[in-house]
Amino acid sequence: MSRTVEHTQVAIVGGGPAGLMLSHLLQRSGIDSIVIDIRSRAEIEQTHRAGILERDSVRLLVDTGVSDRVLRDGYEHHGIELGFGGGGYRIDFNELIGASVQLYPQTDVFIDLADARARDGGDVRFGVSEVSVADVTTDHPAMLFTDADGVAREVRAQILVGTDGSRSICRKEVPESERRQYFREYPFAWFGILCEAPPSAPELIYSHSDDGFALISQRTDTLQRMYFQCDPTEDVDAWSDERIWEQLQRRVNANGYALKEGPITSKTVLPFRSFVQEPMRYANMVLAGDAAHTVPPTGAKGLNLALADVRVLAECLERHLRQGDTAALDDYVTRALGRVWKAQHFSYWMTTMLHRLPEASDFDVRRQIGELTSIVSSTAGSTYLAEGYTGWPQ
Amino acid sequence: MSRTVEHTQVAIVGGGPAGLMLSHLLQRSGIDSIVIDIRSRAEIEQTHRAGILERDSVRLLVDTGVSDRVLRDGYEHHGIELGFGGGGYRIDFNELIGASVQLYPQTDVFIDLADARARDGGDVRFGVSEVSVADVTTDHPAMLFTDADGVAREVRAQILVGTDGSRSICRKEVPESERRQYFREYPFAWFGILCEAPPSAPELIYSHSDDGFALISQRTDTLQRMYFQCDPTEDVDAWSDERIWEQLQRRVNANGYALKEGPITSKTVLPFRSFVQEPMRYANMVLAGDAAHTVPPTGAKGLNLALADVRVLAECLERHLRQGDTAALDDYVTRALGRVWKAQHFSYWMTTMLHRLPEASDFDVRRQIGELTSIVSSTAGSTYLAEGYTGWPQ
Repeated sequence: MSRTVEHTQVAIVGGGPAGLMLSHLLQRSGIDSIVIDIRSRAEIEQTHRAGILERDSVRLLVDTGVSDRVLRDGYEHHGIELGFGGGGYRIDFNELIGASVQLYPQTDVFIDLADARARDGGDVRFGVSEVSVADVTTDHPAMLFTDADGVAREVRAQILVGTDGSRSICRKEVPESERRQYFREYPFAWFGILCEAPPSAPELIYSHSDDGFALISQRTDTLQRMYFQCDPTEDVDAWSDERIWEQLQRRVNANGYALKEGPITSKTVLPFRSFVQEPMRYANMVLAGDAAHTVPPTGAKGLNLALADVRVLAECLERHLRQGDTAALDDYVTRALGRVWKAQHFSYWMTTMLHRLPEASDFDVRRQIGELTSIVSSTAGSTYLAEGYTGWPQ
Repeated sequence: MSRTVEHTQVAIVGGGPAGLMLSHLLQRSGIDSIVIDIRSRAEIEQTHRAGILERDSVRLLVDTGVSDRVLRDGYEHHGIELGFGGGGYRIDFNELIGASVQLYPQTDVFIDLADARARDGGDVRFGVSEVSVADVTTDHPAMLFTDADGVAREVRAQILVGTDGSRSICRKEVPESERRQYFREYPFAWFGILCEAPPSAPELIYSHSDDGFALISQRTDTLQRMYFQCDPTEDVDAWSDERIWEQLQRRVNANGYALKEGPITSKTVLPFRSFVQEPMRYANMVLAGDAAHTVPPTGAKGLNLALADVRVLAECLERHLRQGDTAALDDYVTRALGRVWKAQHFSYWMTTMLHRLPEASDFDVRRQIGELTSIVSSTAGSTYLAEGYTGWPQ
């Protein structure tokens, strides 16, 4: 098949927030890139994902000129609450470390980035098909695809970046002998709903209970997001609104909270897994975001970790491409993985501290309460949690 | 059988550090007690146990006039080291929270207390036999025993205290319907040695490695205590000195440490279990120390928790017996259990952060490194660990 061949400096497979942010940052450094994604823009916009941005994720959006809509339309949260043992305890990020997070859905981050790329003349091609990558061990790695108009294309670059999510095809380019995969499954999942109701609380409430974990979160003044721990094989169709509200209310009532109910407009089961592939570089291909690592949702780290990856990657690509710094890509791997493993631990910690494990003994449940008590009764413990939640400095 | 009947205010079953300290504190408040123990004094003195005293445990010995030998013969440690991922990282208690711990073996704490009881005319009867307790739900609970001279005795008191260790007979007096037992076993144990060698390090080193956990600790200038993670069914006789040193060296060499070797004079396997019985009061009987709870040795909490129990108990018994405060014994239970569950969590945390679980995946090991990195790279994380290790305030 004859292909139309194009050249760029950085070929980016995957046009979610990580890929678009990388392309945006590279352009600011005078580096050309082309981004492709098999999904249409509309399809990505309809993906409901995480809603909490770390302090530095917010800064990245605002300070690099993507948009300041996150500050106008987002909700600044100065803390979270931990509910356990019949009561609620606030972790006050602002008081402890002078930080906050922003409630701002991933879909809006994507819209801001897609708008900014369009505004700045970025080369982003949604809705492509038949994507493959080639020659990643050479100095002219390529992404091959059929564009939305049916034209077969080949993009040659100096560096290929895989930001193509948890089902990454780029990740598979690394031979088994060259990669290490780290994996953990959990014996539970989250049942997530969207409902038409006013907020039940001003900030997120992580609620530990004998019946399992529940998370009260928010979205807008009229639409709310709630989650509760469920079996990974749970069938959403078996759950009526009444049954969902009964479970949610019971798990938060236990700690003195009450939920404002309303029509449920979406029901999904979110899987829990922890995954890391190392190294995040193979010859002239690098991986970033979900393509290289997945975290369970408890710590709200997935999107933030992807943005942290590409912030470091953009800097290292500039050193590599413009300054000929041959150590720059390995430096990316080292710096990114340091944060990845801290985030993996943080996500595991929040998960295991708050969820009821199927095989948990009464001792385990009481010990969880002992841990939560230790955290909220210690300024140092609360600060340690606040640092992880709002994001470690670069 | 005819028994010689005696009366006292507080009858104490168990003459280890908890029982003797309680008797000592009660006498300072003008309250009489009688302590019994089935072991001889010499036998207890030969029991090698924990060696790290929290700050408040040291103060309790010195400030209440037991002895200041702990300050003269003990070794003040201003921190510990955590070894992992090829390096060593110090947690500086003094710098973080202005605290320290004291290396001073439990056997010396016992000797100091037994000497102080003898000096102050305390009524402590070692080497008794055929011990039982009776009438704990009445206002005249009793301990029945045969003394070292073969005389059958009955001691009637207002309150009976069980400080009779992890195989407590007092604990069993609480009917099943009135008690809750919380329990956890671990799939490993510690292989502990005493060896004739100079110290390998000035402070304790907790070493995480691919081969499992090892702890470098000290005792005197010429005698050292070392531990390494082993199978709970390990046969000490199957371990030659050479094999032990090979295991220990490998697990600490991995993080850049080296051990000074010498003849091994003692080899024991220390079991790991977590246990709590609630409530710690039943009518006119109360439990304290190992009789009510057991922790794994990783956090060095066992002896310290027993001393913290009796410090609170002595105060509450004084309120109960001298001021007629009927809420005092329940107050003991509430305050003691708050600390017990924090200590249970701390011990579990230190254990699971540092040991290799038999079923651990590569992910789990890397996540442990991620957690240890998070702790040592955060002042708050290090402080949270230091607070737990040196002991929370009352």
